Amino acid sequence: MAPLRRRRVVGLVIVGDELLDGRTRESNSHYLIERLLRLRGAVGSIRIVGDRHQDIVDAIHDAHRESVAVVVTGGLGPTPDDLTREALAGFVGESLFLDEELAEVLVRRYRRRGREMAETNLRQAYRTPSGRSIPNPRGTAPGLLHLHEGVPILLLPGVPAELRSMWEQTGEGVVAPLVKGGAPRALRLRSAGLPESDAAQLVGEIAAAAPALELAFCVTRFGVDILLRTEDEGLDLGAASRPFVDALGEKLYTIGDGGLPEVLAELLWERGESVAVAESCTGGLLGAELSSVPGSSRYFRGGILAYADEVKRRQLGVEAEDLRLHGAVSAEVAEAMARGARERLESDWALAITGIAGPDGGSEEKPVGTVFVALAGAEGAQHRRLSLPGDRAQNREWSVAAALDLLRRHLLARGSSSPKP
Amino acid sequence: MAPLRRRRVVGLVIVGDELLDGRTRESNSHYLIERLLRLRGAVGSIRIVGDRHQDIVDAIHDAHRESVAVVVTGGLGPTPDDLTREALAGFVGESLFLDEELAEVLVRRYRRRGREMAETNLRQAYRTPSGRSIPNPRGTAPGLLHLHEGVPILLLPGVPAELRSMWEQTGEGVVAPLVKGGAPRALRLRSAGLPESDAAQLVGEIAAAAPALELAFCVTRFGVDILLRTEDEGLDLGAASRPFVDALGEKLYTIGDGGLPEVLAELLWERGESVAVAESCTGGLLGAELSSVPGSSRYFRGGILAYADEVKRRQLGVEAEDLRLHGAVSAEVAEAMARGARERLESDWALAITGIAGPDGGSEEKPVGTVFVALAGAEGAQHRRLSLPGDRAQNREWSVAAALDLLRRHLLARGSSSPKP
Repeated sequence: MAPLRRRRVVGLVIVGDELLDGRTRESNSHYLIERLLRLRGAVGSIRIVGDRHQDIVDAIHDAHRESVAVVVTGGLGPTPDDLTREALAGFVGESLFLDEELAEVLVRRYRRRGREMAETNLRQAYRTPSGRSIPNPRGTAPGLLHLHEGVPILLLPGVPAELRSMWEQTGEGVVAPLVKGGAPRALRLRSAGLPESDAAQLVGEIAAAAPALELAFCVTRFGVDILLRTEDEGLDLGAASRPFVDALGEKLYTIGDGGLPEVLAELLWERGESVAVAESCTGGLLGAELSSVPGSSRYFRGGILAYADEVKRRQLGVEAEDLRLHGAVSAEVAEAMARGARERLESDWALAITGIAGPDGGSEEKPVGTVFVALAGAEGAQHRRLSLPGDRAQNREWSVAAALDLLRRHLLARGSSSPKP
Repeated sequence: MAPLRRRRVVGLVIVGDELLDGRTRESNSHYLIERLLRLRGAVGSIRIVGDRHQDIVDAIHDAHRESVAVVVTGGLGPTPDDLTREALAGFVGESLFLDEELAEVLVRRYRRRGREMAETNLRQAYRTPSGRSIPNPRGTAPGLLHLHEGVPILLLPGVPAELRSMWEQTGEGVVAPLVKGGAPRALRLRSAGLPESDAAQLVGEIAAAAPALELAFCVTRFGVDILLRTEDEGLDLGAASRPFVDALGEKLYTIGDGGLPEVLAELLWERGESVAVAESCTGGLLGAELSSVPGSSRYFRGGILAYADEVKRRQLGVEAEDLRLHGAVSAEVAEAMARGARERLESDWALAITGIAGPDGGSEEKPVGTVFVALAGAEGAQHRRLSLPGDRAQNREWSVAAALDLLRRHLLARGSSSPKP
């Protein structure tokens, strides 16, 4: 039954009851898959198990049998139901011991934050004698690297931010040499404003003419990513991607990893221009995206969350007449909100969103999912009407993506920066 | 190594290359977990494998060994890389044969849609001799139910809509009798403002005195959830949870599923009171949380995103003197922001956040992670200073949770609603 260990294949073991009882939707595997693809490695299988000693042992055993490296996430916390360290020890046939140095690091870490370390946290300072600990710059749980029959087994915490920084700082360096050298090379084309089926349609013919390329589509919160991959070492991926880039046109917002906020940040920053927001149904999500980029104070002024109509009038100067005649969800009010935010916050640009995110509040004329996004600049305001088919959370996310993309395209259409007076 | 088959535990095997190469984020397991929990069953483990014959055989083998039923999804399509039927046949030691009746159904199905069936689709009409097919009302791929050593193995398509209707029409009827009648009953205690290790410490002694209860801790974006579970049918979970509830005190924000925004929504709504926000480093995240609840217009007025200091002065009335003397990240400015938002947006309450989310902008006196949250009401303003150890995204999220919790606790401390004049 035992398959051979496959070249460049990494096995993932994801530990946590919360992933099996509906509390938490697992997300670390998706991150690790993406990182491994970049290294030109691949994931052979994923095993998700609960916080039970024998299940973890079995999963590590099975993954170890077939992979050149095993990544185990979760179950490294300070509580008694965190059993991953014990399971690894059981699998490799060693006993855990208290690493005094590691314990010191933990105690100091707590002290720096002005807190005493609880006794139970000492659990995190245990490791296998032939393993070595992986530093955790963002949390208390150290990771563990243990080489078993030449195959590295990495234990990393399940908290996504901790996992990511530890993977990038340490894990990748361990695994990269084992998976490098011939897995599909990939290029990511990121598009906004294009449904997945349209994207597939748009690039279908080009793809048919390029058999050395493998295509994959990935829906993100900003739009659709098209992943171009090849196993052909001789292929110039840049040149091969050009027809796709041309077909996507202005829907393509970047080639690579940056999201829409990062792309917009760069466009604004190089122009020395600023943006403000006026949000109704999104309630701050647009501002949250614009301010998610480190250094966003260079271009993000702030905004007005005008959830109540009175706030739209008083804080944004929307005319009562417009609200009465056209309704709060209308092109007129969206543009007035954008103009109001731009004037009052003294920004070069302002984006506004007003709509019916749902589940209630729809009408015959303006059903749930009707959203207006508007952009105001020195030359006036413009808007786009959206008809979104999702639930409340999705509609809010898509509205934010549409607003960000409206400004991106407008900046590109205007061409490069003109020096400000 | 073989663990015993566990009572009421179902094993999931999810098949598809697209789940391992970053194209698709797996979602069927989450659906099946929720359905099985309703039946009071549980998922023992999840195995995600690619479209490789031996991998599917191994995964079915391992899941079969430990479960009372096995659900396999994906790999039932008409193309040669769909191998799940073959893998099942290999595992149970039978040969697939063409089921003429099933083939007829397929041909008719295509004809009804005015299409000729391609030869390759006949693959979908093969089954094991002792298995029986499961009708697929929404697609072409029939499912397959095969009983092996008394354990049902269900093959279902990976297309979510097809899987769901087939599970609800057929799968559930097969699996329900095997898992019904006493799976762990659970109660979720949700807390805010308590690090995971402190939560473990706080309830540790109580847990030791209640051996019939199993505890799990889960970090959420609002705090820590403590899940109490029991297999003991006779145990009154409500009564057993009381010492935990008492120990958590005001840190407990709900028993059940609602998040902090939902709890706050209810508190505000029953008091007929409203809230506004003033945000600097969180850039809209707090408003986004408050407006994430359907019907939030009943209590959420809106807010001011005062990212730039000028916006703090002009839109919130923060004194230039306070900004100069204490800095934008200070208790004085946080409270002034809250007071300004409350006055200008005419709300009963206002929450403000100002801080250094990182990665840059820290100083000796105010390192990255220093955040002030403030609350203003009719009786004045108050603040809390936070020292957060995370990255930019985490620090922003934790700041929002702290602000929401500040208002929640204040409302509770004030007692029940007093009728408004």
